[in-house]
Amino acid sequence: MKIVAFIGSSRPNGNTEVLTDVLLENINVRKVYLKVLTIKPIEDMRHTEEGFPIVDDDYDLILDAILESDMLVFSTPIYWYSATGLMKNMIDRISQAIRDQRYPNLKEHLKTVETFVVAVGGDNPRIKGLPLIQQFKYTFDFLNMPFTGYVIGRASKPQEILQDKVALSQAKLMNEQIKKLIQSREQC
Amino acid sequence: MKIVAFIGSSRPNGNTEVLTDVLLENINVRKVYLKVLTIKPIEDMRHTEEGFPIVDDDYDLILDAILESDMLVFSTPIYWYSATGLMKNMIDRISQAIRDQRYPNLKEHLKTVETFVVAVGGDNPRIKGLPLIQQFKYTFDFLNMPFTGYVIGRASKPQEILQDKVALSQAKLMNEQIKKLIQSREQC
Amino acid sequence: MKIVAFIGSSRPNGNTEVLTDVLLENINVRKVYLKVLTIKPIEDMRHTEEGFPIVDDDYDLILDAILESDMLVFSTPIYWYSATGLMKNMIDRISQAIRDQRYPNLKEHLKTVETFVVAVGGDNPRIKGLPLIQQFKYTFDFLNMPFTGYVIGRASKPQEILQDKVALSQAKLMNEQIKKLIQSREQC
Amino acid sequence: MKIVAFIGSSRPNGNTEVLTDVLLENINVRKVYLKVLTIKPIEDMRHTEEGFPIVDDDYDLILDAILESDMLVFSTPIYWYSATGLMKNMIDRISQAIRDQRYPNLKEHLKTVETFVVAVGGDNPRIKGLPLIQQFKYTFDFLNMPFTGYVIGRASKPQEILQDKVALSQAKLMNEQIKKLIQSREQC
Repeated sequence: MKIVAFIGSSRPNGNTEVLTDVLLENINVRKVYLKVLTIKPIEDMRHTEEGFPIVDDDYDLILDAILESDMLVFSTPIYWYSATGLMKNMIDRISQAIRDQRYPNLKEHLKTVETFVVAVGGDNPRIKGLPLIQQFKYTFDFLNMPFTGYVIGRASKPQEILQDKVALSQAKLMNEQIKKLIQSREQC
Repeated sequence: MKIVAFIGSSRPNGNTEVLTDVLLENINVRKVYLKVLTIKPIEDMRHTEEGFPIVDDDYDLILDAILESDMLVFSTPIYWYSATGLMKNMIDRISQAIRDQRYPNLKEHLKTVETFVVAVGGDNPRIKGLPLIQQFKYTFDFLNMPFTGYVIGRASKPQEILQDKVALSQAKLMNEQIKKLIQSREQC
Repeated sequence: MKIVAFIGSSRPNGNTEVLTDVLLENINVRKVYLKVLTIKPIEDMRHTEEGFPIVDDDYDLILDAILESDMLVFSTPIYWYSATGLMKNMIDRISQAIRDQRYPNLKEHLKTVETFVVAVGGDNPRIKGLPLIQQFKYTFDFLNMPFTGYVIGRASKPQEILQDKVALSQAKLMNEQIKKLIQSREQC
Repeated sequence: MKIVAFIGSSRPNGNTEVLTDVLLENINVRKVYLKVLTIKPIEDMRHTEEGFPIVDDDYDLILDAILESDMLVFSTPIYWYSATGLMKNMIDRISQAIRDQRYPNLKEHLKTVETFVVAVGGDNPRIKGLPLIQQFKYTFDFLNMPFTGYVIGRASKPQEILQDKVALSQAKLMNEQIKKLIQSREQC
């Protein structure tokens, strides 16, 4: 089973990534740092004759990572109670990607992948991060993707996530769950 | 009273802008099209010694517009149930701006501005757009900004918003409300 | 087309009912005042051998009203950011009703009815009433019922709803929408 | 430190209570079973001359329990994505209680109590239970009560909660947190 984690942080090794590392401890994962990629905002061409043009940036790398993976982890710090702009631009472009004739299997593939969301914020995230979770849920529902699990952490200063025992414990339990998933798929 | 509308669409004259135009009919407004500006994603430097560097892009234009205005209108299409990446990057950068010594009055100024949100989406937006509204609410609360009003429209194809009588009617009522606000402020 | 409005208020002629009257002006409607009925809290017997017993209260009247109607209006004041206890007990009992062998067609019937929610509250209801709307949405989704529309009003003192122009205007537009629905169904 | 847990279930020893027991293991707690009490729906008399009358039911017992406690635990099954009617009627009556001259210290007392919410549901509760949590948050905010923590469990059949490792683990961590709170208060 192949796993990709999209890291939407602007800081290297930030709290969100630390929590993601707990979630995926001892599991093979490909990490994609959105910060080092160029992903342009979507231009909505759905209703034009010519349709979406091919965009000259790094988004194909995102799509390739999705298409080769069986599990997607969306890791985002909570900025202003939602996903970061980096993460959001990546998500927005899905509207274009599912209409991209170079990726005819994308929509079907998405229905088969497991998904996790890891979100870390400083201002009461287990309450004020809930709209963000609802948005991921609506998104996954639209695309017929299962929403396998999520973990919200509380942290502001560097490494502060290590004191959020509730989040760490959740991430560890999900880590076991993921390992079982991997085993069961490999036995098939 | 000065008003600025931040347009987070990727299409010129899209449904969200049309609805914003109804909201602000016969009212002087400065429109800022995020699409034609360069606004880089925030780099979180809150916890570094050197703090945030000055960023070489168009964000100062946003801040100048905010500082000269008494009312801010956030107009965003609903992409995947939340604000567009363009709008989100603009919002994310507020974290840096309120720490920017070149704008010492920003935080105080924000407490005095009226705010409106205009959001238009195609997939049941009056239900599935609610998390987006909650996020703006949390954001305004954090910054001690009043949340004066919002209107959600339903549209997907170009100009389709003109058939959403509920949204149009709401926008018109708010238009009257804004005109009264302008009058009352000008009498002071 | 037959319409029933369930009024969850504790006051006669309260703001919620006034707004409901605007929604249904010049439309035949049967009003059911939950306050004057005895509706016991559900006892969860799903997992017992004997199943749910027949309850000696007025709930059958609710079910009869639902079964003879093509449109259900749920009108509830917003108490503590959610439906009133009166309304909630009525809703809770649906779990029993859809297992009640005396009403074998209930589940199928529910899929065909139009639904409206009218909710009025005093504390920023267009923001803080959103979770209530989401709960109705989840409920209707579970039962495969369409969620035709909702209107949220702001009012606290008696008759104060008459000053909420936005809510009144929305209710009037939905009134026209309902009249059209009635016409189109009667032509069939 | 005194703790009271209000159990809003209709079943004795249901999943919600089991999870509450994990939360409060080896901690002295007074359990109040709403099911065995008579709590009438509130009658909204805020805007009448005579005000609220004294209601002849068991609600004073609730108020006495609140007033003697330093921590309140609200334990409710998730019925139709919100608190049970039993729990809701109890909460609705707070509007009357904070105006009840026989309890002049209630409002002040509420500001000092810790609060926990335990909610268990069968249909994707960690997503679809979020509006319920938001409603408790708004309620506690209105009353200036701290929202100390919450745990959402997934279970439908009797005892099924024992398989929700994430919820159990969260409850255990909060159990330690509560024990520390007790210690720190007793040292004062």
